[in-house]
Amino acid sequence: MTSDINRKPVRVAIDVMGGDYAPQEIVKGAIQAVEQDGTELILVGSEDAIHKELEQYDVSGLPVRVVNASEVVHDGESPVAALRQKPDASVLVTMRLAKEGQADAVVSMGHTGAVMVSAMEILGKLEGIKRPSAGSFLGGFAPNTIVFDLGPNADCKPRDLVNFAVIGSVVARKLLHISNPTIALLSNGSEEGKGNKLAKETYQLLKQSSINFIGNVEGNDILQGKANVIVCDGFTGNILLKFCEGLGNSTIEWLRARLGKHLAQKEIDAIGNDLFALTHIADVNGGAMIYGIDGVVWVGHGRSKAPEVAEAIHQVNLAVEANFLGELKSELGKLQ
Amino acid sequence: MTSDINRKPVRVAIDVMGGDYAPQEIVKGAIQAVEQDGTELILVGSEDAIHKELEQYDVSGLPVRVVNASEVVHDGESPVAALRQKPDASVLVTMRLAKEGQADAVVSMGHTGAVMVSAMEILGKLEGIKRPSAGSFLGGFAPNTIVFDLGPNADCKPRDLVNFAVIGSVVARKLLHISNPTIALLSNGSEEGKGNKLAKETYQLLKQSSINFIGNVEGNDILQGKANVIVCDGFTGNILLKFCEGLGNSTIEWLRARLGKHLAQKEIDAIGNDLFALTHIADVNGGAMIYGIDGVVWVGHGRSKAPEVAEAIHQVNLAVEANFLGELKSELGKLQ
Repeated sequence: MTSDINRKPVRVAIDVMGGDYAPQEIVKGAIQAVEQDGTELILVGSEDAIHKELEQYDVSGLPVRVVNASEVVHDGESPVAALRQKPDASVLVTMRLAKEGQADAVVSMGHTGAVMVSAMEILGKLEGIKRPSAGSFLGGFAPNTIVFDLGPNADCKPRDLVNFAVIGSVVARKLLHISNPTIALLSNGSEEGKGNKLAKETYQLLKQSSINFIGNVEGNDILQGKANVIVCDGFTGNILLKFCEGLGNSTIEWLRARLGKHLAQKEIDAIGNDLFALTHIADVNGGAMIYGIDGVVWVGHGRSKAPEVAEAIHQVNLAVEANFLGELKSELGKLQ
Repeated sequence: MTSDINRKPVRVAIDVMGGDYAPQEIVKGAIQAVEQDGTELILVGSEDAIHKELEQYDVSGLPVRVVNASEVVHDGESPVAALRQKPDASVLVTMRLAKEGQADAVVSMGHTGAVMVSAMEILGKLEGIKRPSAGSFLGGFAPNTIVFDLGPNADCKPRDLVNFAVIGSVVARKLLHISNPTIALLSNGSEEGKGNKLAKETYQLLKQSSINFIGNVEGNDILQGKANVIVCDGFTGNILLKFCEGLGNSTIEWLRARLGKHLAQKEIDAIGNDLFALTHIADVNGGAMIYGIDGVVWVGHGRSKAPEVAEAIHQVNLAVEANFLGELKSELGKLQ
């Protein structure tokens, strides 16, 4: 909810055609978000399909606008090729609305690669950024620790990790409200001088920077909350994120057998569900903002339903209201 | 126990001066091993100290020999410098016994770096090997899956990962008795073409080799036992191993609170201890063999006590009896 009466509502463009449950669940979630956050909606996709969905809701008086897009990028298509062949794809039209200043943020539950590529091509990358990055909690055990990068940047240079440190720092301040976030480097030893070549070189850059760098942390430190932002290459980050899910699954399975003789099934199920949520952050979040783009962009899971869509819109809303992008640009600019 | 009456007993040289509880616990564990496995022992270190310890046991008729070494490398010393300044260090004397053919295997609970460096310098590395590697189960949930490398090789070339695949394959066959072990590459996606530069290049080498390569696995696949041997660089492996411990710790702490209202403290403690064992493989193993050295060498934790010492001797015993080293040399030779 916007608390400031004078503040203009945030305008969110939504790729209504993207996702396994598009367009039904996307429209449903979007309408929920208007009601909850007072967001101004731009629904992008097949006009006919969208109007048919909207008929189910009473949207009179709600700030909802429909923009037609005649094409859709489907899962399995090569993003670059598909975007070339489909200039009127919903994901492209959505990005163009942000580029032209008609929307403050973009949400898509569609083809992740297509969202990434269209965001890079149309909105453009921020100064010094090679590819958008993804960062998040690595499971629910450390609510004040985010790890960057979790996937898109498999091969990194030291400079990229410094960028992640800056991005993570702004995310921690503006979105997690941590006032002076600490930044650490993920390594195979805590002392300076430990690490692979990338980590050792990054250590020196971070040390010389104005970043609030506290040194190396090891794998066992991540969930102990030793730092607010932990940087690593996206290959390592992605493997860690998925290993967290895998160990969570193995532990849940083991606990089911181990607790079987002690607890009622209902209780065991509840413990299993709780541990699942603590170790499957990607499922809980339903998606993530991508960072390093000149825009506020949310890439959701294909399997997102209305609640995840509403939450995504809520999150980009908060980011726009906090002037996250302006702050990030300013911080990255200082680095150059 | 050696079942073959005609087989010569395995001769194990033990660095009695290495470890937090040296020499008492080392001698105690070694004597246990002689009694259990019929191993022939060579105790290396200060003769006076060793004889004083031996007075506590009835060793008459047992195959125990003492070899004097007048110096010790202590924790915190730089391995290379210490080994230069202390030519009669117990770890060096132990390695020399193996080099000269007086011992079939070496066990040390001392300074890990000093063991690694002295093994490389005195025993030498196998064909094509840059540094010794370490591999093991990544927690107890996947008893037929080992990950290589878990630490020593922070920076790897594709060729190194192929060597890990060969080493892991021989470990799986000869030490874990898996007849035709499957080998996979850890990556950030299951399809060919996914990965960082190292993984992509390694994929091609593994595909072209005669190794039983089944493709990429992701972080969540490790504990599902999708392959018997999973290869990655030692930086990633080390972080995963420690993250496994960290997530184990977080889960145990959470379970203690979560189960508090349901179970008796004794039961909760038992569950915590079991989960600790499942997620802290390095603590459970008490050390590991290092691979890629022209010798059978066990590097134990400094905190090892008699049971860990006896287990280490038992493990190198099995490796010698299985002709692990001969097989590994032959397989690495085929690769060149």
